[in-house]
Amino acid sequence: MRAWQYMGKQQPIQLNEVEEPVPGPTQVIIDVLAAGLCHSDVMYMEVGDQAMPFLPMTQGHENAGVITALGSEVTGFKVGDVVGVNSAGVQPPLGMFTPGGFADKLAADYRDLARVPDGLDISLAALATDAGMTSYHAMIKAGGAKKGMKVGVIGFGGLGQIGARAAVLAGAEVHVAEMKEEAWPAAREVGAVSCVKDAAEWVTDPRRGGDFDLVVDYAGFDTTQKAVNAIKRGGKVVQVGLGKQTFTILTTSILGKTIEGSLGGTVADIEEVFDLMLRGEITPGYEEITFDQIGEGLERLKNNQVLGRLVARFGN
Amino acid sequence: MRAWQYMGKQQPIQLNEVEEPVPGPTQVIIDVLAAGLCHSDVMYMEVGDQAMPFLPMTQGHENAGVITALGSEVTGFKVGDVVGVNSAGVQPPLGMFTPGGFADKLAADYRDLARVPDGLDISLAALATDAGMTSYHAMIKAGGAKKGMKVGVIGFGGLGQIGARAAVLAGAEVHVAEMKEEAWPAAREVGAVSCVKDAAEWVTDPRRGGDFDLVVDYAGFDTTQKAVNAIKRGGKVVQVGLGKQTFTILTTSILGKTIEGSLGGTVADIEEVFDLMLRGEITPGYEEITFDQIGEGLERLKNNQVLGRLVARFGN
Repeated sequence: MRAWQYMGKQQPIQLNEVEEPVPGPTQVIIDVLAAGLCHSDVMYMEVGDQAMPFLPMTQGHENAGVITALGSEVTGFKVGDVVGVNSAGVQPPLGMFTPGGFADKLAADYRDLARVPDGLDISLAALATDAGMTSYHAMIKAGGAKKGMKVGVIGFGGLGQIGARAAVLAGAEVHVAEMKEEAWPAAREVGAVSCVKDAAEWVTDPRRGGDFDLVVDYAGFDTTQKAVNAIKRGGKVVQVGLGKQTFTILTTSILGKTIEGSLGGTVADIEEVFDLMLRGEITPGYEEITFDQIGEGLERLKNNQVLGRLVARFGN
Repeated sequence: MRAWQYMGKQQPIQLNEVEEPVPGPTQVIIDVLAAGLCHSDVMYMEVGDQAMPFLPMTQGHENAGVITALGSEVTGFKVGDVVGVNSAGVQPPLGMFTPGGFADKLAADYRDLARVPDGLDISLAALATDAGMTSYHAMIKAGGAKKGMKVGVIGFGGLGQIGARAAVLAGAEVHVAEMKEEAWPAAREVGAVSCVKDAAEWVTDPRRGGDFDLVVDYAGFDTTQKAVNAIKRGGKVVQVGLGKQTFTILTTSILGKTIEGSLGGTVADIEEVFDLMLRGEITPGYEEITFDQIGEGLERLKNNQVLGRLVARFGN
């Protein structure tokens, strides 16, 4: 079968012919139908062997497809089921430590599968498994966004747009901080009540700080301290974005406050995002490419030439 | 009545004769019997008008005494009751924004009162209201220390010793990081299973980090990152110590982890500490001085000439 593989640092991702996977006892084989391309894919390639020590490694961690084979201990799924895969669940991370979904077939543990509802576009289903799950988990599960809360979203990009929308749907009052003013109309469209360029503007009284209950930082470009300043005592900052390698915090400023780093999510999160997408409540922007364009697509991501998300559509 | 008062930055605390307080509707008047001296008192004086904008200000935020008058709306307490005072509860902080307990009498809101049990030494009762409450709250309430958890305590000083003991009593496996090796025997005495000089030693595998469930950092001297490294995914760091003004964290290192800044506590915390002290389970070291020695005592604290805690005993 075909597989786009990482061959080593400083080398371009390569389209190879490889053996088809055989399911382990708790695994299914999925014929991949859609695979999202992620900034993390580019980052892994740049970090090199530390992220991907086993060479060559098939990349891709945002996948949906149809089950075509079952291991002996798999329960609850059958051949023909359409599923999305949590790439960081029971199995070692897909596309990093175990082969990912930039390939015709993918082996995944059945405990990492989310059932795609009838009528949901398979590209959206793929997006839900990583961009969707990560942003939703950070906002709803780690952050606990709900009615009555004043919530800040830092960064209205691929993840921020889903997180902001999830918070609006949960009934929160949502404020967005996004440098690019051209993104503000989209932020208002998903229900944000205000947009600012810089989260520092959320602090109106320098001694007391802001009055937010929750700020989710999808950027991480020197924004963590601003997020801490914007929340009140008892509030929480959820850190998702990894824009800069470190952040520095004034020690007294976190007293009575919490910073939680959110990573990934669960199958339940993915299925909740599926449901919101099916109902048309979450409609992230994306562009479809072909399987053969995956290598070129990663180059475009690397060179910041992509608006929204890229999803490769392939399979039968 | 007599009151030790902050008169302004760069000026020594001064013993003045002041008006006796009159209780507001929800306040009681307490004849102070014991007042603990705290590093925060020294810090407030050094920070100056930002911490204490209303001059002159009677200091002291670690108090116990006997009720001698009641406001019209006070319920649940009567004249003669022996109580400790949560200095950072319903009222603006005592000894900072409202007059504290380095005075013969103190006005406190009845909702901030903890009942001192019969047989508990009044100096210990005073200690329980700040050093006790703060360290206990951080470990048990913010940190959730309990049986089955592997817990790290950074800094075995006045607060760390109480926090470590509280964790041992809660059934946790407690490890202490304390630079001063002469404090290690005391740490083992309260039940710590190991002592190291530097919390960095808790990380055995540089890629995976440590396997602690919880680390409470009572130091804050460039220790927050070490604490983060020592906990596993899903673990928590509780930051209490303010040794340095800022801390810097590697962004990826907090993914799946939480840093919570803990400040103060509740009346319930104080009463739980009272109970542990009464049963002899928590026995912090302290030295008693007289009311007249409070000014001199703060100088000793400032010059780092105190082992354990200083408590001024006065009243009738």
